[in-house]
Amino acid sequence: MHKGDPISMSVIRRLPRYYRFLSELQQNGTVRISSRELAQRMGLTASQIRQDLNCFGGFGQQGYGYLVNHLYREIGTILGLNHIYPTILIGAGNLGRAVATHMAFEQRGFELTAIFDHSKRIIGHKIRHMVVQDIATLTAYCQTHSPQVAVLCLPKDSVQELAETLYDNGLRFFWNFSHYDLAMKFEDVIVENVHLSDSLMTLCYRITNAPEKE
Amino acid sequence: MHKGDPISMSVIRRLPRYYRFLSELQQNGTVRISSRELAQRMGLTASQIRQDLNCFGGFGQQGYGYLVNHLYREIGTILGLNHIYPTILIGAGNLGRAVATHMAFEQRGFELTAIFDHSKRIIGHKIRHMVVQDIATLTAYCQTHSPQVAVLCLPKDSVQELAETLYDNGLRFFWNFSHYDLAMKFEDVIVENVHLSDSLMTLCYRITNAPEKE
Repeated sequence: MHKGDPISMSVIRRLPRYYRFLSELQQNGTVRISSRELAQRMGLTASQIRQDLNCFGGFGQQGYGYLVNHLYREIGTILGLNHIYPTILIGAGNLGRAVATHMAFEQRGFELTAIFDHSKRIIGHKIRHMVVQDIATLTAYCQTHSPQVAVLCLPKDSVQELAETLYDNGLRFFWNFSHYDLAMKFEDVIVENVHLSDSLMTLCYRITNAPEKE
Repeated sequence: MHKGDPISMSVIRRLPRYYRFLSELQQNGTVRISSRELAQRMGLTASQIRQDLNCFGGFGQQGYGYLVNHLYREIGTILGLNHIYPTILIGAGNLGRAVATHMAFEQRGFELTAIFDHSKRIIGHKIRHMVVQDIATLTAYCQTHSPQVAVLCLPKDSVQELAETLYDNGLRFFWNFSHYDLAMKFEDVIVENVHLSDSLMTLCYRITNAPEKE
């Protein structure tokens, strides 16, 4: 599906956004859209859209535009959303509970199969039809179920302690909400970080340094 | 503090990360660090660090390195973390509750002053010493308290309905967890988006397209 060259992360990071916009167009019954109109809706330029999609082979025809259904499905396939990567979530505090209940893992290529925590107050509680399990049983669980992905909703220090265990149990893919830098520790892992406090600080910077209004 | 040129968003987005690393160094009692060592810890190159910091005037001396305390404070000031932007949070579902309880707003330049929801089941509940208020009272609240920042933890459709109200009440700064594109609607707003499902789809892409292991 790909041309030979590696695709830049900035193109890759725009794919989910295309996918969302196409999903909406589909829901609104739009059958076909020009790159110019899609660009307008997304706040991009038509040439950027053509360039982005050309990285994956291109899906439009000159003067005809894109078939919404087709492009939506193709981008879903490129993203790999037809997969079902077995996934565990560790840390069932406020953030972990929100992620477990809020996210449509199944529509994003994942299946959340187990939730772990170390706190006696939380173990045994139900979140999304799953009983929170004792983190002490993590290795046993991994050996039986071979999860591939771990969602980390723990404080940094706890992830530091846990990282080796997860790695030794074969986990290489992480959705990481902590500030522990897994990619610095292990060379062969794939980590997608969500740094909420970085985002909040960036907002603070942008507000503080906004151009003065007249 | 700035040189004349506008600073690129990619440099700005690295600032919170510098801030975090410096905070750790400070906690570990490190007084001084070379750009080479800081680079090693952060997985960057020394020249990138020097370039980044030079955007803000530069803080090191050739052959001497950076004073951790000083650089930490300076970056905090550049980020604007000494501000206290009055902030409201709208949408006290799972995600909103997690954001309200999990985030150290006060250390990031913000003060969370009120939480709103439309659900009768949630209004009146306490989150972080704040009673969740009825969204119907939002305009009255804004007129009395003039909040500057809104954290949006609502579904897209609800944000679409609310956006005009918030804008009409003078709010221009948004930390947006919804998929509603505020910056497309209003030209003079500053929006920092957190698109969790985009991040999850990006992870799916990267796993699916990871180079095969031998």
